[in-house]
Amino acid sequence: VEELTIIKLGGSVITDKSKPLTAKREAIRRLGREIITSKYKGKLIITHGSGSFGHSVAKKHKTAEGHNGKRSLRGMVLTSSVAIEINRIVMEEFIKLDMMVKSFTPSSFIISKNKKFSKGFIDPIKHTLKSDVVPVVFGDVVMDLERGFCIFSAEKVVKYMVNSLQKKYNIASIIYCTDTEGVYDEKGVTIPEITSKNFKDVKKQIGKSGSADVTGGMIHKVEESLKLAKKYGFEVKIINGNKKDNLKKVLGGKAVKATKIVS
Amino acid sequence: VEELTIIKLGGSVITDKSKPLTAKREAIRRLGREIITSKYKGKLIITHGSGSFGHSVAKKHKTAEGHNGKRSLRGMVLTSSVAIEINRIVMEEFIKLDMMVKSFTPSSFIISKNKKFSKGFIDPIKHTLKSDVVPVVFGDVVMDLERGFCIFSAEKVVKYMVNSLQKKYNIASIIYCTDTEGVYDEKGVTIPEITSKNFKDVKKQIGKSGSADVTGGMIHKVEESLKLAKKYGFEVKIINGNKKDNLKKVLGGKAVKATKIVS
Repeated sequence: VEELTIIKLGGSVITDKSKPLTAKREAIRRLGREIITSKYKGKLIITHGSGSFGHSVAKKHKTAEGHNGKRSLRGMVLTSSVAIEINRIVMEEFIKLDMMVKSFTPSSFIISKNKKFSKGFIDPIKHTLKSDVVPVVFGDVVMDLERGFCIFSAEKVVKYMVNSLQKKYNIASIIYCTDTEGVYDEKGVTIPEITSKNFKDVKKQIGKSGSADVTGGMIHKVEESLKLAKKYGFEVKIINGNKKDNLKKVLGGKAVKATKIVS
Repeated sequence: VEELTIIKLGGSVITDKSKPLTAKREAIRRLGREIITSKYKGKLIITHGSGSFGHSVAKKHKTAEGHNGKRSLRGMVLTSSVAIEINRIVMEEFIKLDMMVKSFTPSSFIISKNKKFSKGFIDPIKHTLKSDVVPVVFGDVVMDLERGFCIFSAEKVVKYMVNSLQKKYNIASIIYCTDTEGVYDEKGVTIPEITSKNFKDVKKQIGKSGSADVTGGMIHKVEESLKLAKKYGFEVKIINGNKKDNLKKVLGGKAVKATKIVS
């Protein structure tokens, strides 16, 4: 059984949080180079958030609330468009680095029901993984059977992929590249490990992650990660994606300051 | 049963055939405005080719031949990327016109086997059609179970959508906007109607459509159209998309110089 690692490049790492629709191309290139030079030999899937692309537009139009009249539909159209826009920038930079990548649009292969995954089509990604091409997915606006549409975060896409691919691959770990050194406690100190045992305690400490984030922030990320870690037994690592060589080191099996989420 | 019309904007209408990677933004805007002002009341799906975006890259890398070593895989990555690139330009221009459009990426919801459709996921497009949002699809590079990947023309995507949607919708017609006044005979005169009866005769006359076209050109289009017209009883119209108001007129039920393909 081949090993598979899923990397998520956080929206706050690849875009400038303070400016709407502004990508951090240098950071994207650096992360791409770290993936290439890590010499990680297993299969990879890369996902990314939409940061200041999706969130500014989604907030303005209240896209998270679903279909709610003509104006919200316009918001869906725009949010959906900027989600692909940031994906194009990521793809552009990766392709310039000669990375073998192919982008898959979540709203084209996932449909939700009341904000939860309802049905999906994993075959194209599954087939791509057989080659040397790395599938790239992202946070998107998907059609929702009850709400018309809904914001479907990169984390939710990861969850769907893990559930669909865990039989075929040995999912080694999920690596979240964020703009903090893992998960902080009340004093701003990195919590080295989160398990089901200390989660209640940790939850109180996390508070809000601070960024303009319509997808629920760090608590959502930790909670979903814990569920997956419990279900399938792999590790979720939350690392600082802004720090040079962090991703490269983690992919190479080296230790960095981070939060590990294990069952 | 609601009426559904499928429009295909030809790659040679929305891109400059003589220059690689050059979109004709004005033509795209004009066609968008014609769709809006036509006051057509049924449901719409818009598809488009990739013209000088896809074809130049695909030809160079022999993408049509499928997976054939590392270099061909690089060609797939590039062809796949420029197919989305031209789609982004179409979407950008349509969104500027306040059109309610959402793009769906064929390689994310279709998988082929030896260049033929194998499996797909139509739910997101089906659900989108329930709202006032128009799905936009395009010619793409899809994963192929035998060849690794293959070029999947907008015509093939249309065929899949027709097969999947014909039970739910009354498919009124498919309108192909090309750069000719329909299908020409040997003397360059428009053939007004093609049926199964005169097809053999017509086929000899068509010859090659002349444009750099890795997807098989006009004969492929007519052949596929005839099969669909026969199977489901609707009309396929091949019109000149370069001529102002042609699309608007056809959507409004008015006559223009064109080739009709009927069973």
